[in-house]
Amino acid sequence: MIMTNGIIYGIGVGPGDPELMTLKAIKLIREADVIVVPGKEAKQSVAYKIAAGAVPEIAQKELLAIPMPMTKDRKVLAEAHRKGADMLEEQLNQGKTVVFLTLGDPTVYCTFSYLQHHLEADGYKVELVPGISSIMACAAKLGIPLAEWDEPVHIIPGALTEDIMLDSRGTYVLMKSASRMKDVKDDLRISGRSVQAVLNCGMENERICRDLDEIPDDAGYFALVIAKEN
Amino acid sequence: MIMTNGIIYGIGVGPGDPELMTLKAIKLIREADVIVVPGKEAKQSVAYKIAAGAVPEIAQKELLAIPMPMTKDRKVLAEAHRKGADMLEEQLNQGKTVVFLTLGDPTVYCTFSYLQHHLEADGYKVELVPGISSIMACAAKLGIPLAEWDEPVHIIPGALTEDIMLDSRGTYVLMKSASRMKDVKDDLRISGRSVQAVLNCGMENERICRDLDEIPDDAGYFALVIAKEN
Repeated sequence: MIMTNGIIYGIGVGPGDPELMTLKAIKLIREADVIVVPGKEAKQSVAYKIAAGAVPEIAQKELLAIPMPMTKDRKVLAEAHRKGADMLEEQLNQGKTVVFLTLGDPTVYCTFSYLQHHLEADGYKVELVPGISSIMACAAKLGIPLAEWDEPVHIIPGALTEDIMLDSRGTYVLMKSASRMKDVKDDLRISGRSVQAVLNCGMENERICRDLDEIPDDAGYFALVIAKEN
Repeated sequence: MIMTNGIIYGIGVGPGDPELMTLKAIKLIREADVIVVPGKEAKQSVAYKIAAGAVPEIAQKELLAIPMPMTKDRKVLAEAHRKGADMLEEQLNQGKTVVFLTLGDPTVYCTFSYLQHHLEADGYKVELVPGISSIMACAAKLGIPLAEWDEPVHIIPGALTEDIMLDSRGTYVLMKSASRMKDVKDDLRISGRSVQAVLNCGMENERICRDLDEIPDDAGYFALVIAKEN
């Protein structure tokens, strides 16, 4: 174990509305020595802006931005994750209490997970504080249950592939389809499922789609589709 | 549309720790005319106790308990849901702002969904406010990501059945296995997955299981299992 009192919290700030932050997230942000966000400039990041909406004092905190390349190249990403972990460890070695802000929840397709693996392997103390995931936030925004009775829920990031079809019972949640939304829509149409979506949930440009045809092909990264059995 | 200004909010209070309540939930509880909880006696319900931990003033509010039979008999349940919806509509017809408290999140296997269907069909205004689901809370408590990269997540309530196997890619979340936990454990053992669990997440008798064999066969209703690919 590393000889430091430093601790890092991976904290979910929810999907966008500062009012969807938890008391615990707010308390830990207030108590932190350093606030870390992924991105080029801390104050420009979405997670920072959400947190600042509930905790304006955050602007007086020491802020640290950890650059994350927007690429799928695993080698480039691995280097960025190692470098990001090094930046965090430098803070932790000074005994600081570090809070890493993440959009939504820190266990669901979260950049922090990749840094966390390094930090834990290197012997540092990591704690996760859950946030409202966009999955639940979008269902609530649409006013529909994600699942009832004994219905399963399948959360699928990216496009559907041959080994992931829409042929299981229950609800499908399709996230991060991004540039592949047109293909996803084609698959959804064939499935005959009842489809609704929220684009940019909780953000300024939020848009609700009550029907498959309302979802634009270029819906973007923050589009979440809920496809239910009829 | 019904001629009333009444509105009902289905609000998630999170999995147990009052600090995991959102600012929005707290605000709406403070502003409500009536607080409703499922159960026999309002102040005995888990959701009420969580809310009271963050909003002690709730004790001075008008409280309403809606009895929910613990049965799988769909006919008995349907009658209870209709009766529960009638009780809520009586409040709404008086123009009241009603807050219905639910454990975890109101879109995930939530009793409120069944009442919501009646209320909406009868023309009343319903809004959902997301809460921290036990799914994310348990992953955070275990300190592990639910999913990374392009891994799907499959949420399965109850036992596994012939049409739901553990043979898809990604993470399986097994909830509400209750009396069928022994069978679920047998299936998990065969799957060769890496298994962790939290029993009674965020409650007094919380227990973390780092291994399949640590999960008791009688783990109970509030046991959540996370089974990852190796």
